[in-house]
Amino acid sequence: MARALRLARRARYSARPNPHVGCVLTRDGAVIGEGFTQPAGGDHAEIQALKAAGDARGATAYVSLEPCAHQGRTGPCADALLAAGVTRVVAATRDPNPQVAGEGLRRLAAAGVAVECGVLEREARREIAGFIARMERGRGRMRAKLAMSLDGRTAMASGESQWITGPAARADVQRLRARSCAVVTGVGTVLADDCSLTVRAAELGLPPEDIALATAHPPLRVVLDSGLRTPLAAKVLDASAPSLLCHAADTPVPQALAAAGTALCALPRDARGLDPHALAAVLAARHCNEILVECGPRLAGSLLRAGLLDELVIYTAPVLLGSSARPLLDLPLAHMADKVALQIEDLRQVGQDWRITAIPTAHS
Amino acid sequence: MARALRLARRARYSARPNPHVGCVLTRDGAVIGEGFTQPAGGDHAEIQALKAAGDARGATAYVSLEPCAHQGRTGPCADALLAAGVTRVVAATRDPNPQVAGEGLRRLAAAGVAVECGVLEREARREIAGFIARMERGRGRMRAKLAMSLDGRTAMASGESQWITGPAARADVQRLRARSCAVVTGVGTVLADDCSLTVRAAELGLPPEDIALATAHPPLRVVLDSGLRTPLAAKVLDASAPSLLCHAADTPVPQALAAAGTALCALPRDARGLDPHALAAVLAARHCNEILVECGPRLAGSLLRAGLLDELVIYTAPVLLGSSARPLLDLPLAHMADKVALQIEDLRQVGQDWRITAIPTAHS
Repeated sequence: MARALRLARRARYSARPNPHVGCVLTRDGAVIGEGFTQPAGGDHAEIQALKAAGDARGATAYVSLEPCAHQGRTGPCADALLAAGVTRVVAATRDPNPQVAGEGLRRLAAAGVAVECGVLEREARREIAGFIARMERGRGRMRAKLAMSLDGRTAMASGESQWITGPAARADVQRLRARSCAVVTGVGTVLADDCSLTVRAAELGLPPEDIALATAHPPLRVVLDSGLRTPLAAKVLDASAPSLLCHAADTPVPQALAAAGTALCALPRDARGLDPHALAAVLAARHCNEILVECGPRLAGSLLRAGLLDELVIYTAPVLLGSSARPLLDLPLAHMADKVALQIEDLRQVGQDWRITAIPTAHS
Repeated sequence: MARALRLARRARYSARPNPHVGCVLTRDGAVIGEGFTQPAGGDHAEIQALKAAGDARGATAYVSLEPCAHQGRTGPCADALLAAGVTRVVAATRDPNPQVAGEGLRRLAAAGVAVECGVLEREARREIAGFIARMERGRGRMRAKLAMSLDGRTAMASGESQWITGPAARADVQRLRARSCAVVTGVGTVLADDCSLTVRAAELGLPPEDIALATAHPPLRVVLDSGLRTPLAAKVLDASAPSLLCHAADTPVPQALAAAGTALCALPRDARGLDPHALAAVLAARHCNEILVECGPRLAGSLLRAGLLDELVIYTAPVLLGSSARPLLDLPLAHMADKVALQIEDLRQVGQDWRITAIPTAHS
C-alpha cells in the first residue's frame, strides 16, 4: 500500500478534478503491474495497472482509494478488476464520492473477491484531502501560502518587499501551485507585483519524469478584483494559463476587458469586499479540489475570519523585519479570548527557511 | 568524552562562576572514576574523579576542558593529575581563561603525560559558551527569552496577556533561569506581572538528584528601573534570592529603599534609558557567564539594537493573536536592508509549543 501511495503522489499534479490514486497488482508476493490515475478522461490507476500486468488472474490489487463503481468518462474499475480475475482487493479508504461510497467494494465482495479497507487510511485521506472535502462538504480545500520573518512580518511598512524566503521555499511554492486546481490572489498583489501565478518547469525542483505531469494542466488563476482594476496587460491575464477575474456584481465591465475575451465572474459583495463564500461556491462548481491562496495580509485575514481557510502554509525566513513592518494576517483581535488556535501539522526546514503547516481550529 | 560532557551538564546549574566540566578516568578500557565541577570553592571535576578512583596510576583522563594550571580557590588540577600518576589526558578544548590558556596541557606534556586536545570540541565549547565569552571578550553571554504567537505577537494591544505557552515551555524557562548567573528584567514587567524571577524546584522538570544542584545557587535578579519605581513589596525584591536594582545615576534613592537594604546600582543613561553597555559591564564585573533576559518587547529590542543579545530563545505557541497585538521586539526598521539576519541554532517541540533558538548575525 505504501507503494500504491507513492504512485498516487506521482499523479497529484495531473489527475484533477479526479482524485489521484495509485494501484499495485501482486501475485505470489511479486508485483505484476502498477499504475496511477491518468489525466482526466484517461485511465484510472486500476486500469493502468491491469494493462501493465497483462494477465492479472488470481492477483491482489492494492489501491489507495476504493475502486469506482460508476460509469464516468471511463468505465467502472470494480468491474474491470472482476473481469480480469483479480481475487483480492485491499483499499486504503472508501471513495467519498456519493456515486461510489462503498458500492465499489460491495460489488467486488458480492462477486466473491476478498475485500479489505482501511490500510494506511490516514495517509491516503490526507493525500486527497481536497477531493474528500469537495465530496463531503461540497467545496474543496483552501490553503493559504504566506511568507514571513521570524517575528511574523511580511513586508516593510512602506510596502517595500522582496523575496524574504530562499529558492528552496520558492520551489516548494511552485509545487503547491502545480497540485492546485486554482490559485487565488487579490488585485492588490497583482498591481504591486504583476505576478504571473504560473507553474514554471525550471523552478519545480521535480524529477524530469514528473515535470511534464506537473506542467500539463496549469491551475486556474483567480484574481479577486471587485472594481476591475487589473490592467489588460497584467501577466496574470496572459495566455500562458487560464484566468478568471472576479468582480463585484455592481461594477460595470469595461468594454476593453469584454472585447479581450477575459473570463469574468460577478460576485456579491459583503462588508469587506467580495463575498468569500460566493468565491468558494464558484470554485466548487468548477470542481476545484485544492485551492491555493497567494495574497497579502488583507485577503488572507478575511478568508480566515470567514472560516474558509483549511490550512496555512507559512514559510518563515530567519530574519527579523521589526515592529513597524506589515503583519502576517490582517486580523484585528481585541481580546486573548479571540485568539485563533492552530494545530501544527508539520514543521520542517526548506533550504534556509522553515515551513510551518498549520490547521486553524475553533477559537480557543 | 561524551560521558565527560554528560557529567559536565550535571554541573551547569551549580558550578558558576566556574565553567562546568566533567571528567572520566579510565584504565584498561574500564571507567575507574568520574566527577563534575562542584559549587565554587569545591572540587573541580578532575579532583572528584581522582577521589572516586582512589588509585589512578596509569589512567587516562577525559576532561571536557583543559585542566587548570593556576592556584585559585582550589589547587591546580594539572598538578593533581600528575601527582596521581595519570599517564594520558584527553581534553575537549583549551581553557580560555588567560591564567590557563594551554598552560595546563603544556605542564602535563612537559612531565611526560600523553596529551590530546580537540575531541568533541564544538559541543564542549557550546556547553560553556557563557564562560568562554566572558574570558575571551570580557563579558558573558546574554540570552533573551521571548514567548510569542505564531504570528509574532506577545500580548494584546490593551496589554491583556496571559501565559500563551504551555507548562513544558515554562519548565524549560525554569531550567534556563537555573543555569543563568543573572536574570534581567525591566521595571515595566515587574509592575505589570509582579514576577518573582526565582527558580522553583517543583517546576524544573529535572531528575531528583539534579534539583538540589539547580536550586542551591539562585541567579541574581536584576531589575532595570531608571526611575526607581519598583515597590518595596515587589516579589523580585523578596528574600528568596539576591536582587539588584539598577537605576539612573541621576535618580535620587528614596529613603525607604536605602533603609530596606536593597542592593542598588547606579548606571548612566543613554538616549533610550539606562545604558545597556554599562549594564553588561556591571554583570561582567560580577563574573556572570550566562545572563537571561526576561522582559517586554522594549528592553529586548533595545538590547538587540545595542548588539548585546547573543541568543534569542523564542517559545512559539500555536495560536494567532492578530495584527493589533503587541510585537515580539520593539524594533522599528524602515528598510529591508535594515533587517536582522538570524542563524537558527535549534528548533524543537516543547510540549505543544515550539522553541526556536536563534543567533543574531550581522545585518544582512
